[in-house]
Amino acid sequence: MKAVCLISGGMDSSTLAYYARREGYEILALHANYGQRTEAKERSCAQKIASLLEATDFTEIDLRYFENFGASSLTNRNMPVDRFDPARAHLPNTYVPFRNANLLAIATSYAEAKGADAIFIGVQALDYSGYPDCRPAFIDAFRKVIALGTKETTQIELFTPFITMTKTDILWLGKDLRVPYEHTWSCYQNEEKACGTCGSCHFRREAFAAIGEKDPIPYEVD
Amino acid sequence: MKAVCLISGGMDSSTLAYYARREGYEILALHANYGQRTEAKERSCAQKIASLLEATDFTEIDLRYFENFGASSLTNRNMPVDRFDPARAHLPNTYVPFRNANLLAIATSYAEAKGADAIFIGVQALDYSGYPDCRPAFIDAFRKVIALGTKETTQIELFTPFITMTKTDILWLGKDLRVPYEHTWSCYQNEEKACGTCGSCHFRREAFAAIGEKDPIPYEVD
Repeated sequence: MKAVCLISGGMDSSTLAYYARREGYEILALHANYGQRTEAKERSCAQKIASLLEATDFTEIDLRYFENFGASSLTNRNMPVDRFDPARAHLPNTYVPFRNANLLAIATSYAEAKGADAIFIGVQALDYSGYPDCRPAFIDAFRKVIALGTKETTQIELFTPFITMTKTDILWLGKDLRVPYEHTWSCYQNEEKACGTCGSCHFRREAFAAIGEKDPIPYEVD
Repeated sequence: MKAVCLISGGMDSSTLAYYARREGYEILALHANYGQRTEAKERSCAQKIASLLEATDFTEIDLRYFENFGASSLTNRNMPVDRFDPARAHLPNTYVPFRNANLLAIATSYAEAKGADAIFIGVQALDYSGYPDCRPAFIDAFRKVIALGTKETTQIELFTPFITMTKTDILWLGKDLRVPYEHTWSCYQNEEKACGTCGSCHFRREAFAAIGEKDPIPYEVD
């Protein structure tokens, strides 16, 4: 059994890859470079995780066309990254338009070309600041697109085991799976020391606090 | 009104862009390089068409990750291109796995980032050798993905005016729209003179024959 795992190098996707491996899948790692500020750091984390899991392939895909589109602080370096703000009424500016559909379309092409049986993606509906492309209804609609848009002989299951889990749930699972979180990176802003204030840092730190452990990566704010 | 038009440089997508312009849309041209053999020729045709239509943007996207996936004679230069064969029981090897989902995901990101109202794609269910990602059911499923995976304030219509048209219908329409077919390219194999034998050449020549006109591009077989 082979599974395409989308591995960004963050806490969630690394936990996901460990989970897929325990489920018995041989891992085909797919890492996306979409021109995000922290790409170099994320790539090296993703490579480390893939190598620890003895992934049989590591493919990096270039989605830097998102830079041309602008419209997100993750890919437009002139736009400051929104801090976490629970009172914000609109989407944070880290939203990259329809990014998960792009990732899933590529993962499906890769899976169909390589004869893989499954795709694992670490989307979460709860903690992701309301991004529309993290909703269960979006994922269900995409499953239909996969079934209709691939060859009749192709059977690809799309797994999103974290979709209704909190970051804390994921971290408990990851502890059980012995995920080496020192080799993961979540900050949207920095590559040396995590900023501790962007939405991604906020949720990660909250999760480590909830399980009563210290996050092994360095933070500016500590 | 702004529309993202996927312009490959072929006969169909060029006709489509002329159609969208007549419908009153300002054109945002989106051209994909997915490592196909004839890319240089296709790009120059797409640029010419976009400039004739006074497109306000021309964005090229790099989908050469399809080369890494292999599995298609369009992107794997070691695999000979299947000739047209009406008796073939399976998909021709020019099928690029799930390509249209990749194109539509990108087009949606681009449209959402630029505030466009519509996407036009020239897929056809009839003439396209049975590619699964050209079926109306696939397109309908993708419409749902767009609605669910974009912001609530985003409204993007996906138009596929050619989906039930034959190549001959498209050519009649294109004659009416005065599409300059001398600036389009369809051959999967060559860039100097079209081969005349691949599936794409076959359908194009058949259409010109049906309307009783000579295709203005050069062919090896003439």
